[in-house]
Amino acid sequence: MIEQRAFSVEAWGLTETELRLDLIAQAESLFALSNGHIGLRGNLDEGEPHGLPGTYLNSVHELRPLPYAEAGYGFPESGQTVINVTNGKIMRLLVDDEPFDVRYGQLRKHVRHLDFREGVLTRVAEWTSPARRTVRVTSKRLVSFTHRSIVAIVYEVEPLDGPATLVVQSELMANEALPPMGRDPREAAVLEAPLRSLEYESRDSMVELVHETKNSGIRMAAAMDHVITGTDAVRIAKNVAPDIGRVVVTDHLQPGQRLRIVKFLAYGWSRQRSLPAVRDQVGAALTSAHHAGVDALFAEQKAYLDDFWARADVDLEGDTEIQQAVRFALFHVLQAGARAELRPIPAKGLTGPGYDGHAFWDTETFVLPVLTYTNPQSVADVLRWRHGTLPIAKDRARQLGLAGAAFPWRTITGEECSAYWPAGTAAFHVNADIADAAIRYVEVTDDRAFEEETGLELLIETARLWRSLGHYDVHGDFRIDGVTGPDEYSALADNNLYTNLMAQRNLLGAADACERHLEKARCCGVTADEMAEWRAAARAVLVPYDEDLGVHQQADGFTRHQLWDFDHTKPEQYPLLLSFPYFDIYRKQVVKQSDLVLAMHLCGHAFSAEQKAKNFEYYERITVRDSSLSACTQAVLAAEVGHMALAFDYLAECALLDLQDLQHNTRNGLHIAALAGTWIALVAGLGGMRDENGVIAFAPRLPEGLTRLTFTLTRRGLQLRVTVLSNEASYELLHGEGSMEILHHGERLTVEDGVAVRRAIPTAVPRPTPTQPKGREPRHR
Amino acid sequence: MIEQRAFSVEAWGLTETELRLDLIAQAESLFALSNGHIGLRGNLDEGEPHGLPGTYLNSVHELRPLPYAEAGYGFPESGQTVINVTNGKIMRLLVDDEPFDVRYGQLRKHVRHLDFREGVLTRVAEWTSPARRTVRVTSKRLVSFTHRSIVAIVYEVEPLDGPATLVVQSELMANEALPPMGRDPREAAVLEAPLRSLEYESRDSMVELVHETKNSGIRMAAAMDHVITGTDAVRIAKNVAPDIGRVVVTDHLQPGQRLRIVKFLAYGWSRQRSLPAVRDQVGAALTSAHHAGVDALFAEQKAYLDDFWARADVDLEGDTEIQQAVRFALFHVLQAGARAELRPIPAKGLTGPGYDGHAFWDTETFVLPVLTYTNPQSVADVLRWRHGTLPIAKDRARQLGLAGAAFPWRTITGEECSAYWPAGTAAFHVNADIADAAIRYVEVTDDRAFEEETGLELLIETARLWRSLGHYDVHGDFRIDGVTGPDEYSALADNNLYTNLMAQRNLLGAADACERHLEKARCCGVTADEMAEWRAAARAVLVPYDEDLGVHQQADGFTRHQLWDFDHTKPEQYPLLLSFPYFDIYRKQVVKQSDLVLAMHLCGHAFSAEQKAKNFEYYERITVRDSSLSACTQAVLAAEVGHMALAFDYLAECALLDLQDLQHNTRNGLHIAALAGTWIALVAGLGGMRDENGVIAFAPRLPEGLTRLTFTLTRRGLQLRVTVLSNEASYELLHGEGSMEILHHGERLTVEDGVAVRRAIPTAVPRPTPTQPKGREPRHR
Repeated sequence: MIEQRAFSVEAWGLTETELRLDLIAQAESLFALSNGHIGLRGNLDEGEPHGLPGTYLNSVHELRPLPYAEAGYGFPESGQTVINVTNGKIMRLLVDDEPFDVRYGQLRKHVRHLDFREGVLTRVAEWTSPARRTVRVTSKRLVSFTHRSIVAIVYEVEPLDGPATLVVQSELMANEALPPMGRDPREAAVLEAPLRSLEYESRDSMVELVHETKNSGIRMAAAMDHVITGTDAVRIAKNVAPDIGRVVVTDHLQPGQRLRIVKFLAYGWSRQRSLPAVRDQVGAALTSAHHAGVDALFAEQKAYLDDFWARADVDLEGDTEIQQAVRFALFHVLQAGARAELRPIPAKGLTGPGYDGHAFWDTETFVLPVLTYTNPQSVADVLRWRHGTLPIAKDRARQLGLAGAAFPWRTITGEECSAYWPAGTAAFHVNADIADAAIRYVEVTDDRAFEEETGLELLIETARLWRSLGHYDVHGDFRIDGVTGPDEYSALADNNLYTNLMAQRNLLGAADACERHLEKARCCGVTADEMAEWRAAARAVLVPYDEDLGVHQQADGFTRHQLWDFDHTKPEQYPLLLSFPYFDIYRKQVVKQSDLVLAMHLCGHAFSAEQKAKNFEYYERITVRDSSLSACTQAVLAAEVGHMALAFDYLAECALLDLQDLQHNTRNGLHIAALAGTWIALVAGLGGMRDENGVIAFAPRLPEGLTRLTFTLTRRGLQLRVTVLSNEASYELLHGEGSMEILHHGERLTVEDGVAVRRAIPTAVPRPTPTQPKGREPRHR
Repeated sequence: MIEQRAFSVEAWGLTETELRLDLIAQAESLFALSNGHIGLRGNLDEGEPHGLPGTYLNSVHELRPLPYAEAGYGFPESGQTVINVTNGKIMRLLVDDEPFDVRYGQLRKHVRHLDFREGVLTRVAEWTSPARRTVRVTSKRLVSFTHRSIVAIVYEVEPLDGPATLVVQSELMANEALPPMGRDPREAAVLEAPLRSLEYESRDSMVELVHETKNSGIRMAAAMDHVITGTDAVRIAKNVAPDIGRVVVTDHLQPGQRLRIVKFLAYGWSRQRSLPAVRDQVGAALTSAHHAGVDALFAEQKAYLDDFWARADVDLEGDTEIQQAVRFALFHVLQAGARAELRPIPAKGLTGPGYDGHAFWDTETFVLPVLTYTNPQSVADVLRWRHGTLPIAKDRARQLGLAGAAFPWRTITGEECSAYWPAGTAAFHVNADIADAAIRYVEVTDDRAFEEETGLELLIETARLWRSLGHYDVHGDFRIDGVTGPDEYSALADNNLYTNLMAQRNLLGAADACERHLEKARCCGVTADEMAEWRAAARAVLVPYDEDLGVHQQADGFTRHQLWDFDHTKPEQYPLLLSFPYFDIYRKQVVKQSDLVLAMHLCGHAFSAEQKAKNFEYYERITVRDSSLSACTQAVLAAEVGHMALAFDYLAECALLDLQDLQHNTRNGLHIAALAGTWIALVAGLGGMRDENGVIAFAPRLPEGLTRLTFTLTRRGLQLRVTVLSNEASYELLHGEGSMEILHHGERLTVEDGVAVRRAIPTAVPRPTPTQPKGREPRHR
């Protein structure tokens, strides 16, 4: 946890003014730059000290065997792990032969600043070497949103207190040594030096290394080129070997003189294309960037972000920390998804190696809803990636004895990589989550071409999965037995309520989409009978309810289980999964993360207002939030049932998760879905936004502590700005022609172009504040 | 499977008259000799060819890491695997420098015979060498029941058709190469050469090797000594090295002359005692055997077995195969348990390395009931072994957050070695099974000293476990959620009926035993309140029942699950667990092995006769018998509800399991529990024996195909012989004074010493024959 504020609180950026070695790994995650295609951790230019060096390329991974002491049929045998690729961000500096290393000499000034509007990480350091020469180092770094293969670095050095001989080594380094991670020796063995050199070359100030991964067979090229401005004394040398390339710049400067190195870095990779193709692609990208020039790259970066913020910004008054946090969140969500383009958005984006670089259901359930309203193109791209993995998912379904497609619980390329099936394979809801994301995307964008080309087949194959996974019992209920819902503190339950309701949506959504695209559906073999079967199953879906307690059940029998003994659970025993066996956790009433509560958010129509309030209170008492994917949903439902202070507490927990390292694992990368959850907590929580049944609804209400909340979203080509004050809300279409039907606290309104519609906010029904497990109350905001 | 009869059908032995290399591994298991302390597979004297060389010492094992791709809290990290120890049964023979190897030259005669009354494996081979010299080799081998550290081998060779120079190398060989087993390279690495030499020496014709296991730290000594009778030309040499000792006997014989080598082999091992102590123990055993002489060893062996058969024999008319099979079964059950003495009885006894040499619940539930009535001392010994592991089981309970003791699912020394927790740790019924065995042993033997010293604490600590594992729900039902019952095709269910009823017995049995030993119970901290709590929980145990279908549920919700699609399951897809994922299997109605049906056998009082019939029929339809632990119980219940032909079919399947290799894995060792099941199918099945509520009951009835069944059992010091004919049964006390109350088909009788009581057998209520899943019908007898 980052207890003390190590970073500034500001509206549009994140600034560090002191280099704390104990927080260096966390800062590397927070300062990570990415465009969804390439990701760089915020390592210092000189490479060391570091928490965890990291350069990631979307989907570049290595395979490793998944060991089982007792294997079973269908257990995946091979895992995929994201690898740290050739590091091109290293700029080593020697000042009169002394290596610049902040651990030696004296760091007189240190400022790093990530600017959310510029999309640039800048650094200013003033350092006195052990030999007492002081220099100023200034660097700027970007991963381009507009040139997706390109990284640009501007590195400048100037002596401050006397002449100095400076040497800068600009490097490309493959198979970099990493600090030890896992305890499994085989894992370490495989991933220690995952790259095998295929080719290396240099030309002028350009150096290029081509490698391939040993087992996964991905060819990968990295190249750098430079524009160097120094004194007349400047000299350039270079050397290159299989795993290292260096361009070495030497200059002798007086105070007031400056050595400036612009470094362009390009990456390309493919499992299909040949070595020359991959190499030439990188060369072309480098040339194009070079020709554009670094100033153009910075300008384009800003323009790209200006566009984004105009569509996506959330602006609020009353809480600067939350203001900063939501922009930080949106910036990183954009970075994760912007240019992923037919590749996944991993749980950590490209900010760290956590979760092996895998993508989970979080992408579809938390990240894509945000992007759907703010950057829809990247939603279509991620779903096209899923669509591209349909052959693998169909094979997996067949292997599991099911129809349709079974998407993996965790993966990089589409193969199931989960080695613990009760919390992997059995978590079938991922399929409905993908379908839900496709339904939402089409609903919000009206992108019928996408629906026909991509969404329809996703819906059909997942609907087929559900139809084969469920069955009718003697009472005619459609049951889905033995699956695991979102709450990872339960497993293999019958009729998980979330799963059943999401399957219902999936089945209906597939039938609806087929009706819109009858011909294409027929090509996929869908008949009227099959569509009717989907609708029938959806209608008959079992929704477990405890009549005695008057609450819904997370799954059959759940509310009859023993209550977890919260009173005797010590604070250091959380997260429970590290202190108690699954056996104990699964069989008791204790909830890791919103499950039934998430169902109440995403499938609100299935519950009455009174049921929502009672359910929320019941599950609040047993939810421990050992997952980062809980607080945002609790914020949404707390707001809906009228606990605005509690909603604000959960919003803050979600918003500050990484900025304050609340889960003690920000070092391994940011929690992209939880960051997206910040927007959800604000827009669906405080804003009360729901988008079911063809009309977008709001039920805004501010907690004490906020005086204004403004957010913008795009629906069917229209940009709507919502401004919430304590007593009223206003709705306004920003540009473009047309009008939008909306609901405000249940009242139907039409918002016309150019006319803000204002409405009063009704007072909430007062309810007793719900309680949480002892010691698991959210921090009060 | 052994399709064609490769072995004789005879009443008191097993004879092989042809050496079939394709069945050599199965024959090694069938011809295995053991006293429960030492076990030798039936390898040929000359060591090769072999299926699997095997010499096992009870509990001598090596440790190996248990790998997890995704580990969890409380997953065991170290596994135990039985090892093949120093092989002392090798007698290599050279005839005029040609090694005797049945794969070369011509094997003119081959007979191996295992005699159930002698306890000896004999072999006669006549072989013509490639150089055309013919010899007769005769060997006899025993593992002594009376000298538990001793193996004796008598090896004789004579030339038949001309003079020959014979060389016999009698060996001790450690770290013998084994054929590849598992595919995990680490497993192989650890177990390839598990022994490290500590010392080796020789004296006269004695050779001794002392080793220790590398990781588990067990010191183990093996020694051999010889009595050699040959011509005047006989010469003896020897050599010894860390892993090999040889005594080499050379002689030149004429036809009619014979070289005879008596080999005594002794083993000793300990984790505690010093090298000299272990070494000297072996020397002493060897000396003692030597002094007794080999003839005395054979005579003692026979006397020991005469005693056993007088107590335990099951004699029947009408089916010689079953007659042979039940004696084969009893012989091997005795071999597994006779001298285990504070060590476990593994699932495979000491006949092979299957299941890593682990002991499971099978021992208590299937093996001990048989031994309780036929060789009770070994029951007390096994339970004392369990008692000795109580500290480990208490630690495990604590680790799992439970009170009392949690015994392991699979183990050699008491530590949990199950690496797949849904079918390991979660199968808590093992604790009630142990308690049940203790309750039965005390009930049948009235061994109050054992109860006070051993049984009581086992009952108390397991009762405490159940009390902490269960809880009361809002209706006051005592529930045990999220556990796995005997049926391994379900897992993590709520209120597994078998588990709940066995827990009930455990709780009541503990309270009863505490009342009999109040002072000792008080020493264990048991209060009157605790006893009352146990009784209350037992009374409130939930017994799941489906009112709609009118049958009991294997667990909550079980009968609402989808039926397995038996019609589309191909014969080669059985056992299902090798063709379908657990995910699919667990969530459907398909039963691997008797679970609810086993509850109806062991807890018959909880069901009405009508319920038993309906339940049997219901579960019969979905039970596939992919486990060897199913047919015997199905035989018992089929007989009880009146399906005598079906009972006979299941009895035969159980009886012939290993003799015909029905499960295709007899090569890895015999199924000791299924062998015990043969007795259970006969005595509890056809004999209808139940022993609840202080009185032993019979309800005998013969199927067509049998004309007489006679069995003997000992209860409270009295030997009762039961003879069942088609129309009547007779009960007779064999010796000893006293009288025994029994029930015959519900009628209470008193059997007095010396007077046989005869009663007619009532005709069975006719019922429609139940059906099994398609293709899983038992073979009709």
